[in-house]
Amino acid sequence: MAETRLAAHFNREGFPVCDHHTYVIAGDGCLQEGVASEACSLAGTLRLSKLTLLYDANNIQIEGSTDLAFREDVAKRFQAYDWNVIDVPDGNSVPMISDALRKSRNSDRPTLIIVHTKIGFGCPKKQGSASAHGAPLGEDNLKEPRRTLGYEYPEDFFVPAEVYTEMDKVKSRGNHAEAAWKELMGKYREEYPELAVEWDAWHNAPDFFKVLDDDALFRFDAGSMATRSAGGQSLNRLFAILPNLFGGSADLAPSNNSDIKESPWYDRDNRDAVNIHFGVREHAMAGISNGIALHGGLHAYCATFFVFSDYMKGAMRLSALMKLPVTYILTHDSIGVGEDGPTHEPVEHLAALRALPDMTVIRPADAVETACAYLHAFRAKNPTAIVLTRQNLPVMDRDIAKNALKGGYILSDSKKKKPDVILIASGSEVNVALSAQRLLREQDIDARVVSMPSFELFDAQDEAYRDSVLPSNVRARVAVEALSSFGWHKYIGLDGACVCLDHFGESAPADYLFKKFGFTPEHVCEVAIGVAHKNRK
Amino acid sequence: MAETRLAAHFNREGFPVCDHHTYVIAGDGCLQEGVASEACSLAGTLRLSKLTLLYDANNIQIEGSTDLAFREDVAKRFQAYDWNVIDVPDGNSVPMISDALRKSRNSDRPTLIIVHTKIGFGCPKKQGSASAHGAPLGEDNLKEPRRTLGYEYPEDFFVPAEVYTEMDKVKSRGNHAEAAWKELMGKYREEYPELAVEWDAWHNAPDFFKVLDDDALFRFDAGSMATRSAGGQSLNRLFAILPNLFGGSADLAPSNNSDIKESPWYDRDNRDAVNIHFGVREHAMAGISNGIALHGGLHAYCATFFVFSDYMKGAMRLSALMKLPVTYILTHDSIGVGEDGPTHEPVEHLAALRALPDMTVIRPADAVETACAYLHAFRAKNPTAIVLTRQNLPVMDRDIAKNALKGGYILSDSKKKKPDVILIASGSEVNVALSAQRLLREQDIDARVVSMPSFELFDAQDEAYRDSVLPSNVRARVAVEALSSFGWHKYIGLDGACVCLDHFGESAPADYLFKKFGFTPEHVCEVAIGVAHKNRK
Repeated sequence: MAETRLAAHFNREGFPVCDHHTYVIAGDGCLQEGVASEACSLAGTLRLSKLTLLYDANNIQIEGSTDLAFREDVAKRFQAYDWNVIDVPDGNSVPMISDALRKSRNSDRPTLIIVHTKIGFGCPKKQGSASAHGAPLGEDNLKEPRRTLGYEYPEDFFVPAEVYTEMDKVKSRGNHAEAAWKELMGKYREEYPELAVEWDAWHNAPDFFKVLDDDALFRFDAGSMATRSAGGQSLNRLFAILPNLFGGSADLAPSNNSDIKESPWYDRDNRDAVNIHFGVREHAMAGISNGIALHGGLHAYCATFFVFSDYMKGAMRLSALMKLPVTYILTHDSIGVGEDGPTHEPVEHLAALRALPDMTVIRPADAVETACAYLHAFRAKNPTAIVLTRQNLPVMDRDIAKNALKGGYILSDSKKKKPDVILIASGSEVNVALSAQRLLREQDIDARVVSMPSFELFDAQDEAYRDSVLPSNVRARVAVEALSSFGWHKYIGLDGACVCLDHFGESAPADYLFKKFGFTPEHVCEVAIGVAHKNRK
Repeated sequence: MAETRLAAHFNREGFPVCDHHTYVIAGDGCLQEGVASEACSLAGTLRLSKLTLLYDANNIQIEGSTDLAFREDVAKRFQAYDWNVIDVPDGNSVPMISDALRKSRNSDRPTLIIVHTKIGFGCPKKQGSASAHGAPLGEDNLKEPRRTLGYEYPEDFFVPAEVYTEMDKVKSRGNHAEAAWKELMGKYREEYPELAVEWDAWHNAPDFFKVLDDDALFRFDAGSMATRSAGGQSLNRLFAILPNLFGGSADLAPSNNSDIKESPWYDRDNRDAVNIHFGVREHAMAGISNGIALHGGLHAYCATFFVFSDYMKGAMRLSALMKLPVTYILTHDSIGVGEDGPTHEPVEHLAALRALPDMTVIRPADAVETACAYLHAFRAKNPTAIVLTRQNLPVMDRDIAKNALKGGYILSDSKKKKPDVILIASGSEVNVALSAQRLLREQDIDARVVSMPSFELFDAQDEAYRDSVLPSNVRARVAVEALSSFGWHKYIGLDGACVCLDHFGESAPADYLFKKFGFTPEHVCEVAIGVAHKNRK
């Protein structure tokens, strides 16, 4: 997909500056995983003709023959996806495989090459058996295959001279291809100087603050708006300086506000477009986004309901493990979803993503904090998960809320230097905390309100800053967040309290649920008084 | 699958005491999700002929026509899975649907009935459009469909008398069917008294401690064993009193130790068996386990590597949301996996599952604690995730380690009544904490070691017990666990410290990694000294 987009945008007659095939090597197990079905169905729909999947069909998996669990007709399944299917009956025949690869390059559809192989080939005791899958063959069982395969070197881990000679040819082929591409690119720069400038821009991150002023990034005129709407607006604003955005939603674009209004939709007939219809396929969506980020030249993002992040967690983990700058837009972030009920109301999901190394999680409290989240995400080298509301939230003071880039900051301070209690909140609960602060004042309790959109960004600040926000001598602390309390004790310790949601939600209007589950200024005030008194003793 | 198992075990000539069909209603989006591909491929392999999937094919999803993202030939795909496929061209024709259902009941394979429908049927302004999917039709747009469909009642939410009459017929049909089944069951009890006793046993939980003695549950003679091995042994011991176990692994049975040695494998030709080959399909495996638990009469369990729990998180959440007693066996629980590297080394997974409401997570420290975990899981009404090591761990004192059922307990106490520091650990790190306690003694620091296999079980104890294990006046606390520290501050607060793993693992032998990342008695000792000194001030 990345290749087709860049090719459509940059290639000109005689100048195929982006022009390559993509090869996948997969086994029986891979084709049993649901994510493979999702991705291959979409590849067929999108006619990704330069995609070739080599399927090592050896009929063996860890528990035994694939017949035990996998009797489907794989060729027919891929034909159903509208793929070109080629069968290679003998996986040890290099000419047969070469021939299949040659044919795949001329296909107008993606190609599945079914390569029939024998696991443990050449080792009579192991060939075709599950024991050749997960365990080493062992010293004795290595002798026979060496004989069968005519491998005459007695040493272990030995690379004979002929291999070096052959590999040198491969290197030389690669060097020539690179030199030829560089020459082509040089001529392209002369012939199409404007496109060349664009090419460079797409392959290097812009300096955001140089090209966008404060108003363009952080100005929101509405008094109140859902952070998902502010997110849509931020994404579209960033598109002005990031024309190489490439992403979409798992069939929820109108709800996620994840499409770029000025761009058409990417499909088999129009490759030069930002917006992708991923279909109802979260896992493949995240996997594809990783692929786009790995390819380069494009800014990958994808969107779905926060609760559905479960379906793509495996691929989100790979974003983090590979440190890929994929942006995850996750809307409908709490019981604020309302009537859709507990299946659609995230509870544990914030904790799950916050616990994932190298993933920055941001749950903004208003439009300005949302703009900060997008700014962070598209400048970051690691993946970012932006967690957004369905419901409206008041827009805060721009100059204060921009501190969201620090992860946590004093939004409204106590009158005294040392507050009686600190209320720490994120997202839709920040405003509840602000109202609770007012109620507490009426009871002569002087509270500080800290907005904490991102644990990771806050933890990355220096100790002096962190201690200025959460002084170690103020132990009366209350966390307010309409999701699991799990993880919050890092900030509230053993002496604080949580107003959180440690059970599943329910199906009812959002306002009703917030009230029922205690996310009201009155309840937060009550808990805060308890904590303040306990810590005064 | 549950129906075939019970039928094969209990039905006798003229006595079909378990005999029903299973119907699924799905839409375009459902068939795009990977989990559907996984489940349907397995259903074909297993020839589940009494399974019928009614596919509401209306060609519309939220972003527009299904052509945008889903052009596959669904009939052909299901034929590839070896399903019987029936097409119903007009989804408004009751006779056509009835006819298709009748045909499906005689099939020797699972049946897909593709029912072609029009979304928003009868409403000219909405029919066949995406706007009929996610939003209400609205007052005005309701008038036309009422006219088209000949619905003459003007009231909203009105149930006319004819509907009651028709529904009464359905109720009566149901009552007759129930009475007939009860009569059949009565005769069955006379004809097959032994099977009837077994039937009752399968449908009611046994009193474990009455039927199994302490030795049978908790005796392990080895000095050291992997908790996955102890898990396999516990599962096989429980099979003696739970012959209605039904489960398996996503192609990792030999590694997960999840098969019942005395039982054959469940397949299309042998339905009366415990062990299921799920194939490399984690998400479907967990979904199927939920289905088995919902069916009743069977104890569902499933197994895979802990890191792969990501792929089935969505279905694990449903186990919890529906409070289904599914047991998840999750082995290879940390960097102890070793050479497979960071893709196979869980880090954030314990936190993610601990944050999930109504899921009990247990990470036992040895064989005895593992037996406790299995005992808890198969007696519980909620789902349990049991997290087990690949590597060997010393077997602890039986009478002490049985306290694991309390979630957390004093494994080795300080000499003084008030310890200088408390080391809290789970799983493979408990032994590291015990060694650190010895080192600390040499430095005149008197530590208590708490084994904490389960946060949920510990939190469920009364406050007096919890305070006896973790006294509120001892703030010098160190958590030791080779996974994310996220969530541990609930027990260590702001004054404690974590020896945890807040980054991804690496590929190397387990011993090397434990040393490199600080899971050594020496490092724990060092951290504990720091914490003890800080809290003494």
